[in-house]
Amino acid sequence: MRVFSYFNRAIHGHPAFSKLVVLFSLSSGGLVAYSESQSDSGGHGVEINQMEPKKKRVVVLGTGWAGTSFLKDLDFSSYDVQVVSPRNYFAFTPLLPSVTCGTVEARSIVEPIRNIMKKRSGEIQFWEAECLKIDAANKKIFCRSNLNENLVGNNEFLLEYDYLVIAVGAQVNTFNTPGVLEYCHFLKEVEDAQNLRRSVIDCFEKAVLPGLSEEERRANLHFVIVGGGPTGVEFSAELHDYVHEELVKLYPAVKDLVKISMIQSGDHILNSFDERISSFAEQKFQRDGIEVLTGCRVVSVSDKLISMKMKSSKEVSSIPHGLVVWSTGIGSRPVVRDFMEQIGQGHRRVLVTDEWLQVKGCPNVYALGDCATIDQRKIMEDILTIFKAADKDNSGTLTVEEFQDVVQDILIRYPQVDLYLKSKHLAHVTDLLKDSKGNDRNEVDIAGFKLALCQVDSQMKSLPATAQVAAQQGAYLSRCFNHMEQSSSNPEGPLRFTGSGRYQFRPFRYKHFGQFAPLGGEQAAAELPGDWVSIGHSTQWLWYSIYASKQVSWRTRYLVVSDWSRRFILGRDSSRI
Amino acid sequence: MRVFSYFNRAIHGHPAFSKLVVLFSLSSGGLVAYSESQSDSGGHGVEINQMEPKKKRVVVLGTGWAGTSFLKDLDFSSYDVQVVSPRNYFAFTPLLPSVTCGTVEARSIVEPIRNIMKKRSGEIQFWEAECLKIDAANKKIFCRSNLNENLVGNNEFLLEYDYLVIAVGAQVNTFNTPGVLEYCHFLKEVEDAQNLRRSVIDCFEKAVLPGLSEEERRANLHFVIVGGGPTGVEFSAELHDYVHEELVKLYPAVKDLVKISMIQSGDHILNSFDERISSFAEQKFQRDGIEVLTGCRVVSVSDKLISMKMKSSKEVSSIPHGLVVWSTGIGSRPVVRDFMEQIGQGHRRVLVTDEWLQVKGCPNVYALGDCATIDQRKIMEDILTIFKAADKDNSGTLTVEEFQDVVQDILIRYPQVDLYLKSKHLAHVTDLLKDSKGNDRNEVDIAGFKLALCQVDSQMKSLPATAQVAAQQGAYLSRCFNHMEQSSSNPEGPLRFTGSGRYQFRPFRYKHFGQFAPLGGEQAAAELPGDWVSIGHSTQWLWYSIYASKQVSWRTRYLVVSDWSRRFILGRDSSRI
Repeated sequence: MRVFSYFNRAIHGHPAFSKLVVLFSLSSGGLVAYSESQSDSGGHGVEINQMEPKKKRVVVLGTGWAGTSFLKDLDFSSYDVQVVSPRNYFAFTPLLPSVTCGTVEARSIVEPIRNIMKKRSGEIQFWEAECLKIDAANKKIFCRSNLNENLVGNNEFLLEYDYLVIAVGAQVNTFNTPGVLEYCHFLKEVEDAQNLRRSVIDCFEKAVLPGLSEEERRANLHFVIVGGGPTGVEFSAELHDYVHEELVKLYPAVKDLVKISMIQSGDHILNSFDERISSFAEQKFQRDGIEVLTGCRVVSVSDKLISMKMKSSKEVSSIPHGLVVWSTGIGSRPVVRDFMEQIGQGHRRVLVTDEWLQVKGCPNVYALGDCATIDQRKIMEDILTIFKAADKDNSGTLTVEEFQDVVQDILIRYPQVDLYLKSKHLAHVTDLLKDSKGNDRNEVDIAGFKLALCQVDSQMKSLPATAQVAAQQGAYLSRCFNHMEQSSSNPEGPLRFTGSGRYQFRPFRYKHFGQFAPLGGEQAAAELPGDWVSIGHSTQWLWYSIYASKQVSWRTRYLVVSDWSRRFILGRDSSRI
Repeated sequence: MRVFSYFNRAIHGHPAFSKLVVLFSLSSGGLVAYSESQSDSGGHGVEINQMEPKKKRVVVLGTGWAGTSFLKDLDFSSYDVQVVSPRNYFAFTPLLPSVTCGTVEARSIVEPIRNIMKKRSGEIQFWEAECLKIDAANKKIFCRSNLNENLVGNNEFLLEYDYLVIAVGAQVNTFNTPGVLEYCHFLKEVEDAQNLRRSVIDCFEKAVLPGLSEEERRANLHFVIVGGGPTGVEFSAELHDYVHEELVKLYPAVKDLVKISMIQSGDHILNSFDERISSFAEQKFQRDGIEVLTGCRVVSVSDKLISMKMKSSKEVSSIPHGLVVWSTGIGSRPVVRDFMEQIGQGHRRVLVTDEWLQVKGCPNVYALGDCATIDQRKIMEDILTIFKAADKDNSGTLTVEEFQDVVQDILIRYPQVDLYLKSKHLAHVTDLLKDSKGNDRNEVDIAGFKLALCQVDSQMKSLPATAQVAAQQGAYLSRCFNHMEQSSSNPEGPLRFTGSGRYQFRPFRYKHFGQFAPLGGEQAAAELPGDWVSIGHSTQWLWYSIYASKQVSWRTRYLVVSDWSRRFILGRDSSRI
């Protein structure tokens, strides 16, 4: 009976699922068994376990940086956690460019998600499947496994959640350029790196075959990288090293025909980095013979040609290629796009959350990592309420003391204030209240307060789509989940200027620990905290040590380090497997 | 002009190629350039290099055990060597079962063929392509590369040879069992092992999905191995260890549902081994819970079921499976089959060579490894000529002294004599001439001579299709090639009883160094020379040391040993990549 009432509710709750349920019921009763077990553990079997408080069900989508970092720290004893991802492993994606050339093996940068979860107490529930639809209204998701169709049993299933954590990452953005999906390589997944490695060898094997003209050999050995970001730059550098350290010895007949080109729409490569790094990289690439075409946009890719348009001259030219790697831009995955339509975010470019990583307009759904962006509240939107809350004596003016009482909450709630202070080299936040000549003022009225803060919001910028951001968000969110109960009675967050009381948690704040760009030839460039820039061989060693320390397990740490050592001693392998 | 005369000859010599040549000529002149270079180096350009003796062109097909072992020792300075293989690497195939479960990584057992050839002096010419047709009449082969179709230039080319070495190996023999090609896994190539590894994980991931019945979970976790030879046994043992050492911890919900079955048509598994090993293996498998179905033949395989017939009861039964590995029997590849038709061997099961590995009826073509078999000359076929040659005084009887004069040549030419002596525990070959009561005789007539040797040919048996045989054949043939010149004036081989003089070389003789069967749980069985049998943990360590020492390069040796250590310390990886 309970099963049927569950079905009824499921069907009535969301008519779109009724067809699916009928489909499931037809196939050997698999879902029936599942629904029953779900209803036991899922809050429907209240008549049995009324005494014990039910654990809240958390469903996590994705096992990338954000999802894994969330799972690593989550207290499994307080939640019933289910993880859904088409990949049963976590991949250390910053090393993907190294996998393309065999500097590091694919298997050295992956760790089974079950291994990671095993270390946590409580029950492990991981399903190797893809979430195809989020039904936020009914707190359900619909999943399908991509496993071998020859295996018996349904590949489709429904999960119910109390909290949903969306960490599915992003997909490649082709900017609707024709031919990109068909003829370009990408560098987002481990399989991409493995395919790329094979394809590089293919280009060499093809180029040395008897019966080709020199022009054909040259075309096959022309490697084109679209996008001058850190991934594209690192791949170019790795490829250059691979070719010049190993392949020229094995394919001596064609060693002078190899060419690597990088196409960048901006004026410089690595334009998210400090200018010094960007120009060092460009000079190094020039010395290495890697052609950098800046101010140049790809208009189409075919199996043999890549066409591009110079921004300056509007001229379109086509060049033959052996292989194109597309490493520019990311876009939302279909399941996220569909979800955005449902919750009224259809017009947004990417899923939007508040500063607590909660999806806007959708309580109990969190989104983090590359699939989401934080919509930081502007201070100017709240300026009146802030003023009102701070002006305790309702005098219509704010004294420095009154301001100081709320300043901590302002700094936590609006991180742009901190950035603004730094950019203006102001020592203390009360310096904001100084008049235009820099003299202290005892009090300001609302107009003066607005004027003092009017520039602050200009410092807001969205976070980059990096592993670092995703990992910090995952760790932040797991902390929130672990403190959910105690913080509900004892909120940790800043004052609610627009309401009463305090926020349950402090908003997420990103700490930038710097970024690296390996440039090949055992050299790297790094942007370190405090605007430090470091370039050269020592930076490459810093890169080695930081990347080794950041590994998710001792196993992968050992494997990555031994791969590096092997490469130094024995070189890279060029077998086409 | 020379190009055209070359074309003319090529077309007239073999009309079937004319279409190809026209096809080639249409595509940007690639072949023209190639033909020219060929004619320069290939014996057509006599007007230029009349003074210098041309190097003979050797074309080697295949980079497996036979081909690689041939190339490793060949003197590249005396020959113009070209190697054609669809795999640009050598794979240490005996470790393939270890790759299926991640005990050893795929990349640790492969070595680029260019690396191996680089160590030899002279020019390296390797083409990653498949030989599709051998035209022995015109000493040409037709090749096609399987490389990415998007790369420019012809994938097809012709090569001319003076000597052809066929070492393409064998393909799986399905015995025309329906469904095998579609639904079974094999263990012949590195890719097979990689796919198998992914598929094992798939079975587990599928079995734990929500909504499956226990029956379905059991079906997905039923692993069936067809064939009880060393490969099948080793894979079963590896899989058993993998499941019980790693996977049960990661998939605890289904750990009791896993089943491994082995189907063997013979009465025992490992039936090419000593009986003690065979029964030890059966007992160990029984203890491990691996079901062994002997006397059982597979009649069909579908996506979900495997059907088999018991030899005794003729009963056909079908059982659900998650994965089937087919590791029984080998057959000829299409290119070899086609070649056999051409040279009148169409009725044979496998390509036949003489004792010098030369293809019968096809001078200058050699075949070795799994693609060929040696047709050992029977001594009884030559008995009259042997008698005549030995009977120097034409007395009609053979004295012991006369026999002793030719006995070395007999032993070399007919290795079965040696095997016969051993099987009869005879100390010396002249013991053959003793009479039926064991008394020495001073001389025998032709009838007595025939009687003495009539049992000898029963000892002949064809060599097994193993790496050991292939490697020894490759080494033997390269020695012949390296001594080609000096042995033509100074032949090394035994007396030609049916002709005059001596054979240029001694015939190939296989030395059996024993064989291993790893049985899992750090135990192995070994059959060592001199009918020694060794079983247990120490044998596994012997296996480790021999397999490490047999690696083709220091690189793979280092990798394999470090994989083994890693497995001991960190376990196997279960990421589905």
